[in-house]
Amino acid sequence: MKLATLKDHTRDGRLIVVSRDLGAAAPATGIASTLQAALDDWPATEGPLQTLYDAVNAGSAADVFPFDPAACHSPLPRAYQFVDGSAYLNHVNLVRKARGATMPPEFLEDPLMYQAESDAFYAPHEDIPVESEDYGIDMEAEVAAVVDDTPMASTPEQSAAHIRLLMILNDVSLRGLIPAELAKGFGFLNGKASTAFAPVAVTPDELGDAWRDGKIHLPLVTHWSGKEFGRPNAGVDMNFSLPRLISHAAKTRRLGTGTIVGSGTVSNVDPSDGFSCIAEIRAIEMIEHGEPKTRFMKFGDTVRIEMFDAVGASIFGAIEQKIVGYTAPA
Amino acid sequence: MKLATLKDHTRDGRLIVVSRDLGAAAPATGIASTLQAALDDWPATEGPLQTLYDAVNAGSAADVFPFDPAACHSPLPRAYQFVDGSAYLNHVNLVRKARGATMPPEFLEDPLMYQAESDAFYAPHEDIPVESEDYGIDMEAEVAAVVDDTPMASTPEQSAAHIRLLMILNDVSLRGLIPAELAKGFGFLNGKASTAFAPVAVTPDELGDAWRDGKIHLPLVTHWSGKEFGRPNAGVDMNFSLPRLISHAAKTRRLGTGTIVGSGTVSNVDPSDGFSCIAEIRAIEMIEHGEPKTRFMKFGDTVRIEMFDAVGASIFGAIEQKIVGYTAPA
Repeated sequence: MKLATLKDHTRDGRLIVVSRDLGAAAPATGIASTLQAALDDWPATEGPLQTLYDAVNAGSAADVFPFDPAACHSPLPRAYQFVDGSAYLNHVNLVRKARGATMPPEFLEDPLMYQAESDAFYAPHEDIPVESEDYGIDMEAEVAAVVDDTPMASTPEQSAAHIRLLMILNDVSLRGLIPAELAKGFGFLNGKASTAFAPVAVTPDELGDAWRDGKIHLPLVTHWSGKEFGRPNAGVDMNFSLPRLISHAAKTRRLGTGTIVGSGTVSNVDPSDGFSCIAEIRAIEMIEHGEPKTRFMKFGDTVRIEMFDAVGASIFGAIEQKIVGYTAPA
Repeated sequence: MKLATLKDHTRDGRLIVVSRDLGAAAPATGIASTLQAALDDWPATEGPLQTLYDAVNAGSAADVFPFDPAACHSPLPRAYQFVDGSAYLNHVNLVRKARGATMPPEFLEDPLMYQAESDAFYAPHEDIPVESEDYGIDMEAEVAAVVDDTPMASTPEQSAAHIRLLMILNDVSLRGLIPAELAKGFGFLNGKASTAFAPVAVTPDELGDAWRDGKIHLPLVTHWSGKEFGRPNAGVDMNFSLPRLISHAAKTRRLGTGTIVGSGTVSNVDPSDGFSCIAEIRAIEMIEHGEPKTRFMKFGDTVRIEMFDAVGASIFGAIEQKIVGYTAPA
């Protein structure tokens, strides 16, 4: 099924069920008021949500209205946890190579992952305010899983059974701040702006054969200011599956329901399908020409991130955001 | 005022107002069901909560019952964000010195801070399950602020106005996992177990003169398996105040209401009042004797963390936890 969150007067919005073709939606009234509430009590809410989803697809649901992605929050407007991996090691390898470093061999065995912000996601069509273009503004197109309660030390196989929803996201990165921040040794904080997710979260069964081995085997399409920037396949060159990433996150602690586990920038070894972030093409330019040629994003630039099924239909709806200048409070 | 969260059948528990002497409590019925809900709408809930607090202290509130810390969750059983600083640079300096490294001078200007887990805090009297004693189990006694919505790029002065509550916490650290994890460059994840907070969160005015310059000027008392381990003063040698830490967290993004900003391990340059974590005494032993002598925590060990006012009354109630073995799911 497909779920989204309509903006209303509350911080967490209102849960709606969206038709498979993203044309129509209906409120989940009487089942769960918010997506977090649905996840908090999934054994009780899953069945009624599925029944409503079937009715919305059949055109027989009451209170149906046209689905408007611009009226949506991120599916979870705020979440209790977001951890983000870096599962496509080609990205890591290129970025390191560009600065003359090699990738430690243990990176092939032990996933890179950081604790990310989750208190205030942007809506899928919300502007991204940044104080300075000098921060080196970049998008990162990724896929993610939402899990329910996952016990500490769950194996990848056990973790797979906790995946309730899949999403795509834009992990906004401020490249100019990251090197100094990572050098301090405590990971990302100022180097990451708030994240946005595409408006629709889907259960894995919605992807059919494209969901296998804990990976989404479809291109993730990114446009930068109207021009296609990349469509690497999220199922290709993913060194760690989503269940493997979840298991890593749960190594020393339980994960609460609604935890989002991101894949990191989708990246294919063959660069012919383009890129999911600017840092990567700049790394290749650096390696090939001794200097990067592509600039980072500027105020007014836009980013669109979307994934399509085998017949070209949008699965999650689109992330459509514009970079805008931000002035600090007086 | 003093607020706590009673365990019930829900994930977020039930908000209660606790008397100043921690002897009595009353449910915040009709004001806010949970602490997060109170913070979500603070301008509307603060006044009625204060009125109820006054009544509880006067003995005139309805539905009063004896306050039982063991029946409480952490004030926020789960939160949308927890960022943790390392504001007592003496701790950083000692730990680095013990491994033969110096502290970069820029650490004096730019706070160390990491994004921490917040999806599933332990209750203040809940056991800490750990899979292996080889993980190097350690406590970290800290103070923290809870803020309401804080705009991006707020100054320390502006950030100070967003502090709604103060808390104390035990940031459980797995020292054996941290060096390899930090070497990967993405900060803490497996190296930190879930955190627990003392049962009572208090508004800053509850601290009187002890709350000044954005610091809590009182000893934070830690007992390890019944023996006092340290009582360093949280207002001494704190290089970055709580408002300065909040401002750092908000440098490139807004902070959602209910965000918890931690101080890092409380540490005084003069070691005569003891320590807030084992890593620090081991660092001193390493520097003085060439090897650490104090072991980390073992299964069955307990930790108690508490802060007292000038007349010896407990302000936040106590964190009382036991380390227990954990067996992964079969």
